[in-house]
Amino acid sequence: MFAYERPVRFEDVDAAGIVFFGRFSSYVHEAMEHFFGGLDGGYARLIVERRVGLPAVALAFQFERPLRYGETLVVEVSTRRLGTRSAQLTYRMKDKASGELVATCDHTIVSTDLGALRSTAMPDDVRAALQEHLVTSG
Amino acid sequence: MFAYERPVRFEDVDAAGIVFFGRFSSYVHEAMEHFFGGLDGGYARLIVERRVGLPAVALAFQFERPLRYGETLVVEVSTRRLGTRSAQLTYRMKDKASGELVATCDHTIVSTDLGALRSTAMPDDVRAALQEHLVTSG
Amino acid sequence: MFAYERPVRFEDVDAAGIVFFGRFSSYVHEAMEHFFGGLDGGYARLIVERRVGLPAVALAFQFERPLRYGETLVVEVSTRRLGTRSAQLTYRMKDKASGELVATCDHTIVSTDLGALRSTAMPDDVRAALQEHLVTSG
Amino acid sequence: MFAYERPVRFEDVDAAGIVFFGRFSSYVHEAMEHFFGGLDGGYARLIVERRVGLPAVALAFQFERPLRYGETLVVEVSTRRLGTRSAQLTYRMKDKASGELVATCDHTIVSTDLGALRSTAMPDDVRAALQEHLVTSG
Repeated sequence: MFAYERPVRFEDVDAAGIVFFGRFSSYVHEAMEHFFGGLDGGYARLIVERRVGLPAVALAFQFERPLRYGETLVVEVSTRRLGTRSAQLTYRMKDKASGELVATCDHTIVSTDLGALRSTAMPDDVRAALQEHLVTSG
Repeated sequence: MFAYERPVRFEDVDAAGIVFFGRFSSYVHEAMEHFFGGLDGGYARLIVERRVGLPAVALAFQFERPLRYGETLVVEVSTRRLGTRSAQLTYRMKDKASGELVATCDHTIVSTDLGALRSTAMPDDVRAALQEHLVTSG
Repeated sequence: MFAYERPVRFEDVDAAGIVFFGRFSSYVHEAMEHFFGGLDGGYARLIVERRVGLPAVALAFQFERPLRYGETLVVEVSTRRLGTRSAQLTYRMKDKASGELVATCDHTIVSTDLGALRSTAMPDDVRAALQEHLVTSG
Repeated sequence: MFAYERPVRFEDVDAAGIVFFGRFSSYVHEAMEHFFGGLDGGYARLIVERRVGLPAVALAFQFERPLRYGETLVVEVSTRRLGTRSAQLTYRMKDKASGELVATCDHTIVSTDLGALRSTAMPDDVRAALQEHLVTSG
């Protein structure tokens, strides 16, 4: 399990006074960028130079309670399934202070050649990072 | 079925050159704001003056193909389930020019008192708008 | 003068309950995309196929009063200065209902080859659109 | 001078392949949130509980060179002017790796009662933080 910490920002809040649900996609992606931080040049080099990306084909959230400005999220990332070209990541997002579960997310990604926008074999270092945090039950 | 049209904006695109997956939550919410456009004062008055909101408790996307700058999305919104305090909306997002399906979304909302942040009976006009677009099969 | 209308969106509001100042840059860019809507293929084709962009080299806002959810902005765009490779656009943003001035913006853009990220001669159709809305005084 | 470090995120990039100019407002606000991190409960408590905000009345950027995904920004914040109800902050944003100047920003804020949305005397602890980083020349 990989953990990423992120304070709620001033602009994450919407007209209802709680964090906008679309911001959770940003939290998920930020956590994933850090999850792959150990790649040579990080996730950025994967995208910009190696031209391989991991677009989502499915993304499902359950929201357990509202998130507010002033709170800090801890995002726990695990690999749930690891295939030859795709994988499923799962995220548990908790309020740091109380430990309360705020939201969960299942995120299915496909290794993609960003030039052709077609699926491609998963690079070995990407697979290794996913393998490291693979949790097959629970 | 209610339809909302939205061009992809310059800033919706990410470092991979396609629309960032988090933007689809914005498209969903924008479509929902327009879906409730017939309320007196619109969705904005519901939130700001009446202090009732419709936060998501679940949100699930399937992405069928990448979306690009220069394309325009048509978002078709239907009500799939209508309870006393909650409802499920479903969205089909198509590229306007080709008619190709880009993404689908299921979105479960709960009628919420924004002062107490607790569920509350769904206001009659909100229910009527949901009822109008209720599709029970398909 | 070119006018673009834009309702404030639910997610434009921040933790202080008014529109986040960064959203005004989005309003400016959206208005500019529509300002250049008459180009063949629009602003999107300029960027994606012709690979010419108009990045900002300077951007200055004056904020006159807060903007709230439920309000609609009218953005009036004029060309203030037109050079061989650069131009200055000016924006007056008003609340549609009251006509009150909300913010103004001066925006200096440079015609840029997006491959080389170097300034380039302004395409004729871009210049013509800027010329059409050129206001030299006031 | 106060320094804040921020990697460019995947979603900060726009259809032209460089950081969208509107994101710089987010960088400025994030740096300001951290600048006031020493307040009891931080900037969030100032907003949410004490109901005092620091909305911008003026904001001016100069962009020196494009910013790319994979780069990390160092934002240096100083106070340039300190009045009874307002202040001007200045930001120098540099690419961490090369030290190159990417953008500068002048940001005029007004101490504001968020209930009444009217200017109010600046709280002592807010003033002290601004005083600490006051640079009167240069």
